[in-house]
Amino acid sequence: MAKPQKLAIIDLGSNTTRLVVFHYIPGEMFRLTDQISERVRLSEGMGDANLLQAQPMERAIDTLRMFKAFCRANHIEDIVAVGTSAVRDAVNQRALLARLEYESGIKLRVLSGTEEAYYAYLGILNSLDVQHGIAIDQGGGSVEMVSFSDRHLTQMVSLPLGTVRLTEGFVRSNPINKEDYQRLDNHIRKSLAQVDWYRPQPQTELVASGGTIRTLVRMDRRVKKYPLDRIHGYYLPYESVARIEAQVRELPVAKRTSLPGLKEDRADIVLAGVMVVKAIMELGRFEGMTVSGQGIREGLFYERFLAENHPPSGDQPPLFPDIRQASIENLARVYDQFNAHALHVRHLSLQLFDQLQEIHGLGMAERELLAAAALVHDIGVVIDYYQHHEHSAYLILNADLPGYTHREVVLLAQMARYHRRGKPEAGEYATILIPGDEGRLVMLTALLRLAEYLERGRTQVVSNVYCHITKRLVQIEAQVQGDASVELWDAERNSDLLESVVSREVEILTVPQPVAMA
Amino acid sequence: MAKPQKLAIIDLGSNTTRLVVFHYIPGEMFRLTDQISERVRLSEGMGDANLLQAQPMERAIDTLRMFKAFCRANHIEDIVAVGTSAVRDAVNQRALLARLEYESGIKLRVLSGTEEAYYAYLGILNSLDVQHGIAIDQGGGSVEMVSFSDRHLTQMVSLPLGTVRLTEGFVRSNPINKEDYQRLDNHIRKSLAQVDWYRPQPQTELVASGGTIRTLVRMDRRVKKYPLDRIHGYYLPYESVARIEAQVRELPVAKRTSLPGLKEDRADIVLAGVMVVKAIMELGRFEGMTVSGQGIREGLFYERFLAENHPPSGDQPPLFPDIRQASIENLARVYDQFNAHALHVRHLSLQLFDQLQEIHGLGMAERELLAAAALVHDIGVVIDYYQHHEHSAYLILNADLPGYTHREVVLLAQMARYHRRGKPEAGEYATILIPGDEGRLVMLTALLRLAEYLERGRTQVVSNVYCHITKRLVQIEAQVQGDASVELWDAERNSDLLESVVSREVEILTVPQPVAMA
Repeated sequence: MAKPQKLAIIDLGSNTTRLVVFHYIPGEMFRLTDQISERVRLSEGMGDANLLQAQPMERAIDTLRMFKAFCRANHIEDIVAVGTSAVRDAVNQRALLARLEYESGIKLRVLSGTEEAYYAYLGILNSLDVQHGIAIDQGGGSVEMVSFSDRHLTQMVSLPLGTVRLTEGFVRSNPINKEDYQRLDNHIRKSLAQVDWYRPQPQTELVASGGTIRTLVRMDRRVKKYPLDRIHGYYLPYESVARIEAQVRELPVAKRTSLPGLKEDRADIVLAGVMVVKAIMELGRFEGMTVSGQGIREGLFYERFLAENHPPSGDQPPLFPDIRQASIENLARVYDQFNAHALHVRHLSLQLFDQLQEIHGLGMAERELLAAAALVHDIGVVIDYYQHHEHSAYLILNADLPGYTHREVVLLAQMARYHRRGKPEAGEYATILIPGDEGRLVMLTALLRLAEYLERGRTQVVSNVYCHITKRLVQIEAQVQGDASVELWDAERNSDLLESVVSREVEILTVPQPVAMA
Repeated sequence: MAKPQKLAIIDLGSNTTRLVVFHYIPGEMFRLTDQISERVRLSEGMGDANLLQAQPMERAIDTLRMFKAFCRANHIEDIVAVGTSAVRDAVNQRALLARLEYESGIKLRVLSGTEEAYYAYLGILNSLDVQHGIAIDQGGGSVEMVSFSDRHLTQMVSLPLGTVRLTEGFVRSNPINKEDYQRLDNHIRKSLAQVDWYRPQPQTELVASGGTIRTLVRMDRRVKKYPLDRIHGYYLPYESVARIEAQVRELPVAKRTSLPGLKEDRADIVLAGVMVVKAIMELGRFEGMTVSGQGIREGLFYERFLAENHPPSGDQPPLFPDIRQASIENLARVYDQFNAHALHVRHLSLQLFDQLQEIHGLGMAERELLAAAALVHDIGVVIDYYQHHEHSAYLILNADLPGYTHREVVLLAQMARYHRRGKPEAGEYATILIPGDEGRLVMLTALLRLAEYLERGRTQVVSNVYCHITKRLVQIEAQVQGDASVELWDAERNSDLLESVVSREVEILTVPQPVAMA
């Protein structure tokens, strides 16, 4: 097994400067363990001359010096530091880089627009399960746009349409007057029109990340009283973007924070950012977009994390072959529950699912969800053994779980929540589900619960199950290795949920393990 | 540093048979990582002849065999297995022990009544911060009663007043008729009267544990819509016990589960248990009791865990010298956050608290809470870095935190919840607080938040603070070692909460570290 490693990624952006720390075992397990985010606003006052100002430069240097001290104090030696749009465009870039290196000891890698777009693509495509489409990452200085097909990057561009840059360059009135608004809107649409490959395409999806996008989600979910506190995976419809743009446009900066979900440090720059998003959606005729919480920092991380699977020299970009599989396994590993018990509950759950297929009639999508829930049903023990089913649900609801939709996250969480007892229900998350989901939830949980009790002692004593279905009865033969009396006794006592959903009595019998042929 | 160890404790009781697993570093850190609980009802049908019946014995043997297999599969070699009342009293005890050892490989230690009372005492007194009083632990076969003074055990007794035993011996009608009820009540009171040292004592407290007590809490908190999902530390008043006794007495067993909080497998035996609790409270003239979630299993564990501090040969019982200190440090250690940053935030918080004493006027109790909150404010990072303040609050609310009252747990959780931003409030837990607590919460959180931002880079760059108070200003001199520009900048930007509660402007300056004398 590879050794645990730590990597710090520093991203000196136009608006925010961030440090993120990943702990990981290459190709196997990773988690973000720290983040420090400072609103440095490096690009403040750069103007058309592209000259970094003294004060923002001081703030950037102070912040990177702190980040370096943080890494030293936390024994992190592996540091990747990148500068994006503001650094890239600055005419006094060399002065900044030299001072940064001298004063903080950090050597900054300046990303080209294409590199920035590439890492945004890696971050987004490794966190959302999409095949064909357009990905955008919107920052303070620039907007990266990428087109991808079968998850492979086909086109990319970096446009100088960042929120800070546009606000400083175009917004001279407060609230914005008609003339400023029109001039800015024309500028945005003209810039986008120059991207010759960006035209409406059938059957593509729009996926997006960045500060403006996260702000849009926060505002939209407050209005909708959305029950899930998650940004990653949120579906943001065009109507919401248009509605928020209209609201923000009307208000002077000081009054914008009265809009729920809009933070003070975004109030001044939010309008320009939202206008760009709206223009992109209109030009590509997208009715909505799926939001990723990940971007270039995560892209830089994945390049490292997946290096062994995808050597840089190869033709394959460093993408997880199966994001959903990777993310559910990672969740189990992060909480140290990727173990024989979880794998065996998955095995038994899937046997029950397959053999009872003619009764429940569920398909491959539900089968995959059951397998995923089985793998993480016990992660809550990291919080406390008692009520660990509730803690598992909490952890699932609060994990990123790249590749899963919010609906799927809710189903996974509620299956874990009810894997030991109680009648499964969506509760406060019902509005996220689709018709029929409550029934699916109950059926899948019933299968998971039976598998769990057949694995009561966590010793894999019940190796396989064989179901026989008659009109009034489901007979389950449990193949055992050793003494499984308690498992059978508990499984029997906890089969009432299954009995109710299969409308049959459930009977559990033992058959001994077959002896291997000589 | 001592090595991590695992210990399994098995408790073959009259009603339930349990396995609990502790992971621990002796004297330093522990957590319960696993539990399997089976309702074996070993004492079923024992009757006055004290003869264990064949079926319950089979169930017990099957269960212990499973527990042994569980330990083997989980590489746990250190197993302590004890039998309590039912095993102790059984005339066929030797037959059971021999079969258990032969069939499961587990050698059972049979606890005497006195030993059982002693371990209950260790479990309860190591989990509640009480000095003088009576502790009871109520099981299926017996009730242990202990008197303690200055936390030292002064008297103990084990009475055959367990819930299963009394139910089987006295309850022959359903719902119970007047005659059965009277006969049972007389029996209970006569037994208690024989304990010559159990008389009302001024200034003592009643503390209690066991299945009946936990059931009483579940039922009482449902009626009261108590906002906290915790048993440990719950204060159960006499009126609630009397009310529940009256309700249960009226209902036949089958209808009792309509009472919210009463589980099916307790329905038959609950009445006798509650009658014992009620009689104990009446005889000792207690208006209420504080509930512990811990008992003999934990007592057995603490004996081991604290062995080095309190060698068995010594005069001191194995008790934590300071439960609250031990439990908050343990919580920080469990989530791997007992580190330089947490300790330094505590240091700075307390300096601010002490130096601003004339403004806030808070006392030692609040000072201790602030220190505790500082130690655990970041534990939520174990769940996810983003929103870790919310996760810290969740973990605090769901930890046992021995020694802290529910009110204190809520204050700690909400301080952690708001340590980064937002206006601190009790929210849904307001009913658990006492008048003035909301103000205390805001003040303490303001101090914690300032300390946190002065430790922004987690490098202890601000070593000390010195506050100067004038009519309109609080001037804070930060003594720094190295470059603390970001810390000062962030502390300044995040001092508005403190400004509002001290009704003064807050100004933060730097003073360099004094040079050590040659």
